[in-house]
Parts: sequence; structure tokens; C-alpha cells
Amino acid sequence: MSLVFASVVESKKMLTNLDGWIEKGVAHAKARSFDPNVLLGVRLAPDQYPLLRQIQSSCDNAKFAAARLSGKEAPKHPDTEQTVDECRARIHTCVSHLETYKASDFDGAETRVVTLPFMEGKVISGSDYLIEMALPNFYFHVTTAYAILRHSGVPLGKMDYIGSLNVRDK
Amino acid sequence: MSLVFASVVESKKMLTNLDGWIEKGVAHAKARSFDPNVLLGVRLAPDQYPLLRQIQSSCDNAKFAAARLSGKEAPKHPDTEQTVDECRARIHTCVSHLETYKASDFDGAETRVVTLPFMEGKVISGSDYLIEMALPNFYFHVTTAYAILRHSGVPLGKMDYIGSLNVRDK
Repeated sequence: MSLVFASVVESKKMLTNLDGWIEKGVAHAKARSFDPNVLLGVRLAPDQYPLLRQIQSSCDNAKFAAARLSGKEAPKHPDTEQTVDECRARIHTCVSHLETYKASDFDGAETRVVTLPFMEGKVISGSDYLIEMALPNFYFHVTTAYAILRHSGVPLGKMDYIGSLNVRDK
Repeated sequence: MSLVFASVVESKKMLTNLDGWIEKGVAHAKARSFDPNVLLGVRLAPDQYPLLRQIQSSCDNAKFAAARLSGKEAPKHPDTEQTVDECRARIHTCVSHLETYKASDFDGAETRVVTLPFMEGKVISGSDYLIEMALPNFYFHVTTAYAILRHSGVPLGKMDYIGSLNVRDK
């Protein structure tokens, strides 16, 4: 499996982990008798995006990385979510979409010329795009979502973050 | 450049970015007349590591990833830092160490059998180690450090996080 395709597979796993953290957030809200949707508005700083937008951005970063590295068109997912259930549905939609990719979609991805809508007149190689932008940005939003939930008292630990590992016996 | 080596190069850049965030944190502390070292004790949750440990862990994750993927021995850096200056020196030491690696050190890294001190009797392939552990963990600690500084009022933005990009004209 190429490292590019492995990154796409991993982003699917991390989004599924994120869905699990939100599920624990809902349980925490119920135990503490507050509306779980309140969590979606929590921010770590007044001028940083709240959890809702961190979830949407995590999905978008994974989706656009796969699209740009394979030369495919990413499906449109307008940012209309307002509830935890809608956010979780957005994650499930994104994961299902990522499941349509196969290893061969990323043949030649490292040398692909990637154009970015927010960088007019500029291009970046697929390899640099993955390493310098897609991965740091994806983990930025996923980790910030995790941090907001931890800051809100949701009982999460490092294994919730990392998820299952492809280890084998010696 | 292989994606494995590119990841090591990127981890060096992210550590240098982290050093820049801390520098902005020092300036923020001076402007607000508080001791910058106070920032090192800030946490997002009472049972999560404070900034000091996030910095040390960022360095260690980058250092151990390079060592495990190249089959080299990582230098020992005991966690003795107590001040901002000592933390920044730790980052500089780690970056200098990472600069000793060259592309050929990572030939065959993807199929290398990696053993982990905290997973007795288990092994993982270099590829899975990089994608499932090294990158998610590195970005976890770097992003959490960033989040702690943002939460503490340090004026940082996304470009401070991402740093320079290897883009070129169309």
C-alpha cells in the first residue's frame, strides 16, 4: 500500500475515532444533564473556530486531500450542520465517500501537480501538498476537536485518539 | 525525496514553527507583564499534560520517528527543562539532531520492522508506524501546544502553524 493511500485510509480511521469522541461527549452531556449540542459551540479561544467548525474542517481536509491527490472531484458538503446528530452524519457521509477510493486512484500522486483554490497562480507537488498541508491541517482540526472535548470534561484518553493499530506478533 | 524523509524534514519545520509560537508567547507575556514560564504549566484539562510536556513530547516524537524509521539510535534528552529558554534549547537540539539525517537513511523504511518499547512482543511495519502512530502523535502534541498558547491569549494564526510552503508559480 502506498503511503499516500495509507494516509487516506488513516484519515478515515481518525474520522471514525472523532465520531467516537463525540459519542463520549454526548454521554458526558447526558450524565451532567446538559444539552450535548452546547459542545458544538465551545472554543479554546474567542477567535478560534468552535467544535462544530473543527468537525466540518476535519471532514473537508480529508475529502479534499483524497480528491486532489487522485485528480478526482470532491463531492460538495455544504456546512449546514447545527446539531451533534447532523455532525455525526456529516462524518459518516465523509467516511463513506473516502471508502470509494482504491489504492490505484493514487498512482503517480506524489508527482501530481496540485492547484489550490486559495493560492491563485501557484502549484504544489502532490508529495509536498500531502506532507506540508494536507496532513498538518487534517491533524490540526482533529486534534483541536479532541482538545475542545477534553477541555469540556469529556473523559478521553490517548488510545481514543490513536485508535486501533496494525501491529502483529513478533 | 521519499515521503518518509519528507516527513522527517517536515517535523523539523514544525518544531521550528513551535519555537516561533513560544517566542510569540514570550512577547505576549512581556506585554501583559507576567512571567513567560507560567505558560509552561498551562493545561487544557487538569488530567492532560501542560505545555512543557507537550513541547518535550513533540521533540521526542520527531526524534524517535526518525530513529525507528532509519534503524539508528536516538540520542537521549532527559526531560529536565523547567524554563522557556530551556524548552527552546531542547527544540533547537532536536532540530540540529534531525538535520544529521539524509534521504538515504530511510531507504527501505516502509518495510522496516519496527519494535516499540511500550508494546512488548509486537512489531509494526515502518509504513504503518509512520502513518498510524508517528504522524498522528507528533501532530497531537504540536497542535496541543499551539492550542494551549491560543487558549492563553497568544496571538497566533494558521500561517504560524503551517509555516512556509514549497509552492511554485504555475
